[in-house]
Amino acid sequence: MSIAGSPGAVPLKSDLMTEADDRLPSWRTGPTRDALTGFLDAAGELPVDARVAYIDNDGTLWCEKPQYVQLGFFVDALRARAADDPSIAERAELRAVLDHDSAAMGEIGLARIAAALAGLFDGKTPDAFRDAVRNYMSRATHKALGRPVKTIVYQPMLELIAELRRVDFTVGVVTGGGTEFVRAISEELYGVPPELVVGTLIGYELRRDDDGRPQLRRTASLTGDANEGTAKVEHIQAQLGRQPIVAVGNSSGDREMLEWACAGDGPRLAMLIDHDDGDREYDYVSTAATFDDPEPITDVADRLGWTSVSIARDWATVFPPVDWSPTG
Amino acid sequence: MSIAGSPGAVPLKSDLMTEADDRLPSWRTGPTRDALTGFLDAAGELPVDARVAYIDNDGTLWCEKPQYVQLGFFVDALRARAADDPSIAERAELRAVLDHDSAAMGEIGLARIAAALAGLFDGKTPDAFRDAVRNYMSRATHKALGRPVKTIVYQPMLELIAELRRVDFTVGVVTGGGTEFVRAISEELYGVPPELVVGTLIGYELRRDDDGRPQLRRTASLTGDANEGTAKVEHIQAQLGRQPIVAVGNSSGDREMLEWACAGDGPRLAMLIDHDDGDREYDYVSTAATFDDPEPITDVADRLGWTSVSIARDWATVFPPVDWSPTG
Repeated sequence: MSIAGSPGAVPLKSDLMTEADDRLPSWRTGPTRDALTGFLDAAGELPVDARVAYIDNDGTLWCEKPQYVQLGFFVDALRARAADDPSIAERAELRAVLDHDSAAMGEIGLARIAAALAGLFDGKTPDAFRDAVRNYMSRATHKALGRPVKTIVYQPMLELIAELRRVDFTVGVVTGGGTEFVRAISEELYGVPPELVVGTLIGYELRRDDDGRPQLRRTASLTGDANEGTAKVEHIQAQLGRQPIVAVGNSSGDREMLEWACAGDGPRLAMLIDHDDGDREYDYVSTAATFDDPEPITDVADRLGWTSVSIARDWATVFPPVDWSPTG
Repeated sequence: MSIAGSPGAVPLKSDLMTEADDRLPSWRTGPTRDALTGFLDAAGELPVDARVAYIDNDGTLWCEKPQYVQLGFFVDALRARAADDPSIAERAELRAVLDHDSAAMGEIGLARIAAALAGLFDGKTPDAFRDAVRNYMSRATHKALGRPVKTIVYQPMLELIAELRRVDFTVGVVTGGGTEFVRAISEELYGVPPELVVGTLIGYELRRDDDGRPQLRRTASLTGDANEGTAKVEHIQAQLGRQPIVAVGNSSGDREMLEWACAGDGPRLAMLIDHDDGDREYDYVSTAATFDDPEPITDVADRLGWTSVSIARDWATVFPPVDWSPTG
């Protein structure tokens, strides 16, 4: 055995382990972390065009409680609009939101409320919508966590993305949220360009201004299905064209995407974030509102052999520092 | 003035011009080439995330005459299928194709024929379809040009893509053809990954095999509109999320995409390939079969101030060497 540290020395096994530990500093040592580092090593042997990872956003890359960030954005826009034009509160869906009327909201249903909120930007250009999202994100705070909304991303997931990229993975975000909402922040927060974001799509319409120049405008209606469950797989194929070998999610809306990532030979990683840490984040069983799956997704994970991440057990750090500044 | 070639010498102006010429060797000197090099220089000053170029495929990146390559692929698959199962020729759309019956094909219409041909791969996986395309491309030849179909790409356009990438452009292919057909060859021929190909989309369906594992299968019907005209712009926004500042096309199906690329401030490049060289390629006025635009697209280009590329005048070389091997 050579002396560690001397020129040309063969590294001791303990040195190799220390080196490996450097890769995911916010992940505690243990079986989950070992599964990730083992996968990263194995994936490095695959053809580069097979190295594709798709990751859910809400509850997987950032905190989704007590409400989706996107809902906070739309409610903020609704309040500003209602201050200018109180008549918009005449619409039942919007009035329920403005009044925090949970009973009315439950009766109306999330789908109709979401459509009404998305309709607030009917006729706007993609750029105007993006600027509105970025404006909100620059000032929004998460009251319970006591930090800017921009910093409610999960530090261990940022490290996992960085390690996937280090072995030449294409990393995309596949969200049940609005495609354009996530695109407005994906490059800055995660380094993911707009073309690698797949979500729930609003329709567009090409109009012409008085001089005949084309202008692209948002409509008030969705194109196709909400991006949850089976639709996530079909939309990935349609928009991105490659089956992933890594998929990460936290809810039953991610189930089919994770199953699909496992459907094939060679190294595969299907990972489920289990929100079991009420002290540092939230403690809840993940379900997608649009799904009626009687089996808890954590049980599905055990049954299908996915890698379950316990936030309480596996993450040494949950969030980046409060003064963290995104990379973009 | 220093002596050119001596160490540390300031280059002579003629050296600088030679240096510039090295960028696009298959483009003849003149106003078109100057417009391109001038644009490349100016674009280098823009933020990197604004450097987005979308390029049509048929008739823009490769030869589309006497028939679309994709049609050749489907007819080849149809013949192989009919040899195994003559009964498929009972369907009028397919019989017309097998019989080269132009009158019947005209009466039935391209849309119905295309749908019938796409239906040949109903129920296949994306991988099986991709392998079928690659198998065809490995053996298909272009009889009139006397070269493998893989080499009917335009050499000057390959050079333009390389120069756009050299100044950090994101380069995508936006085609009226089938998304998955083009994805099967885009990485190898153009270095464009599947997620940067936007075309006409076939529907998918997630099924489960006998063991409950998910399998993604092609359907026989399109998702949304054919990717021509206005749809190109709407699909770019939906699937890629960024307005281009470079768009290149050759037909009226590209018109809105080129107009949209010009709609904004700063350096913009809308470029139309004019097929005016019957000696080296084909001489025809580009029109898209699905459009009924009485104004020739070359006139639109002049009126709107696009950069028109005359193949006869501007391209010193049209195709790469017959033994050219794609980069992938």
